[in-house]
Amino acid sequence: MRDRGLDVLLVTDPANIYYLSGYDAYSFYVPQILAVTHDRDQPVWIGREQDLTCARETTWLDREHVLLYSDDYVDSELHPMEFVVDRLDEWELADGTIGVELDADYYTARAHQAFTAALPTGAAVEDATKLVNYCRMVKSEAEIEYHQRAAAISERAMEVGIETIGPGVRKCDAAAAVHEALYSGADGTGGDYPAIVPLMPAGEGTGSPHLTWTDEEYEAGEPVILELAGVVNRYHSPLTRTMFLGEPPAEAERAAAVIIDGLEAALDAVEPGVTAESVERAWREEIAGTTVEKESRIGYSTGIGYPPSWVEGSVSIRPGDETELRPNMVFHMIPGVWFDDYGIEISESFRVTEDGAEVLADVPRELIVKE
Amino acid sequence: MRDRGLDVLLVTDPANIYYLSGYDAYSFYVPQILAVTHDRDQPVWIGREQDLTCARETTWLDREHVLLYSDDYVDSELHPMEFVVDRLDEWELADGTIGVELDADYYTARAHQAFTAALPTGAAVEDATKLVNYCRMVKSEAEIEYHQRAAAISERAMEVGIETIGPGVRKCDAAAAVHEALYSGADGTGGDYPAIVPLMPAGEGTGSPHLTWTDEEYEAGEPVILELAGVVNRYHSPLTRTMFLGEPPAEAERAAAVIIDGLEAALDAVEPGVTAESVERAWREEIAGTTVEKESRIGYSTGIGYPPSWVEGSVSIRPGDETELRPNMVFHMIPGVWFDDYGIEISESFRVTEDGAEVLADVPRELIVKE
Repeated sequence: MRDRGLDVLLVTDPANIYYLSGYDAYSFYVPQILAVTHDRDQPVWIGREQDLTCARETTWLDREHVLLYSDDYVDSELHPMEFVVDRLDEWELADGTIGVELDADYYTARAHQAFTAALPTGAAVEDATKLVNYCRMVKSEAEIEYHQRAAAISERAMEVGIETIGPGVRKCDAAAAVHEALYSGADGTGGDYPAIVPLMPAGEGTGSPHLTWTDEEYEAGEPVILELAGVVNRYHSPLTRTMFLGEPPAEAERAAAVIIDGLEAALDAVEPGVTAESVERAWREEIAGTTVEKESRIGYSTGIGYPPSWVEGSVSIRPGDETELRPNMVFHMIPGVWFDDYGIEISESFRVTEDGAEVLADVPRELIVKE
Repeated sequence: MRDRGLDVLLVTDPANIYYLSGYDAYSFYVPQILAVTHDRDQPVWIGREQDLTCARETTWLDREHVLLYSDDYVDSELHPMEFVVDRLDEWELADGTIGVELDADYYTARAHQAFTAALPTGAAVEDATKLVNYCRMVKSEAEIEYHQRAAAISERAMEVGIETIGPGVRKCDAAAAVHEALYSGADGTGGDYPAIVPLMPAGEGTGSPHLTWTDEEYEAGEPVILELAGVVNRYHSPLTRTMFLGEPPAEAERAAAVIIDGLEAALDAVEPGVTAESVERAWREEIAGTTVEKESRIGYSTGIGYPPSWVEGSVSIRPGDETELRPNMVFHMIPGVWFDDYGIEISESFRVTEDGAEVLADVPRELIVKE
């Protein structure tokens, strides 16, 4: 905040609010704001009256740092950002330099219009999107432990998914089994809900990464992608595997082998001090000259997530991202490749160690064939 | 659109996009826009290149009505709304009157800034938030059937929840069982993911409606609220019950009886032609003179939902909402009441019939006591 000249930072991304305050509830469909100032030793959580208990149960803030707007501000002409301006005014910060996350998912155009209309002349609004996200990149030992426990849950849910999915099985029943595993957890740790529901495209649907499930049955011969994340204390360890419900086409076998080689080359390139783009380059050089092509990024920093995404919103493993890797950064490396009528995704979450990469989950890295 | 003088409508709410086009994928964490114009017989879906298959598999649009922006627009200086302006320009609509959902969850302040900066002088931007939401209020027979099938799933998941939750049971294991039921479904229909994960506060956490679960165990004597929704084809039929894991305090029994009386009075007041606020009045009059107080709305129109909410964003059952009820509107009536150290929520989803209300799920309407 000092570097950016901000007098106050208004955080609205639920993951950033959680990171700074501990606030954890499924209440982000109404405006929630965490105000960080220089002169307070706690941030101020501003939310809906009926969510007071959520703040009390989940944050480390004392009662004076929890401010509540009434339901008069919900779905109304009044907007909670006007309530925020009134508070800034009381704190003599309304005409200062105010950082706002302009591109946070739940910070709508209307919220920002209400906010700027209520601000006095003299106020300066600065875009602080991702300021907190970048602070979240390097994890503490406690956060790493959450990722490791989450990865154990990912492992178990993936095993259950692989075991359950097969010809004649309804996709919704596979979703049921996978969710049961995600939440009952592993090694005594229960699981939290993921920011993205398990993605389970099948058949031609594997040509795209974002389809969920239906209540139709899997068919013999078709490819199935399963992308899921175990979650502990909101920390995600995503994992993806691709299977064929029968003999895969030779081309798919070849592509999977290339993807695995590329993924492993990229993992081998990971160490503190190298750039994110150099890791992508290792992938690109490994797959050069094969049928596999990939334009989009092959990975991203992950950690805390709320719907709609577990992408941290900081580093991407792609050309142009010159962020240097540091120990205890955590990434999901997912070089998904989509052909015309199917796709293959094989991914790993890993943390950067002192001298390399520690892959978090231990599931065979292969194209899975289920007869 | 004609009433509002709109030359083009840009829809960004995933539920509205689904309603108009059928597009259904967990890809709404990147900008997606459905452009509705007067001269085309199909809307135009605009999204990320890698989501082409999702559009092909789930929409009724032909290939020419699916436009793709490249990954150069993802997490970049370029913004997909600039791509949209280029298309509007080609269609000679960029200097027209453009409706935008300024308060849609995923239409961020930054998206709108990129959009307006790219528009030519002469363009007029109108707030079209909720224009489509209000069109969704009255359901077709097919949509009602989805609600009914979803309610059967809600029933089963609630039964499983009530059966599973008890002293010494880990909350995450109850979440696992409830999800298993939500997705394996009922009566041969599998379930889709809900826009809000099951909310399962326990103990003092019941004082707020939006807590999820942890991996701690339920304790004897404590209250537990379970709010969940079965979902079929994205249509939600939410349902809530409150239980005590032991003898409830007499005050809680009395409050539950008042809430049930109030809920039933409100249901009795439902018929075509009455206003939403008059239904709330029936509740308010019924509970007058008791210890139960309720300031916020007691219900809302529901239907299609994507995270973060299954609230339709049209009618609310609260003072001031003079919308007249019409047959085949569907509501979730949830007069949640929160005291200092616990809360009670008992809810029903219902549809408006020709002469009253049809409650969708059939679960005993009572304060549940589990020893």
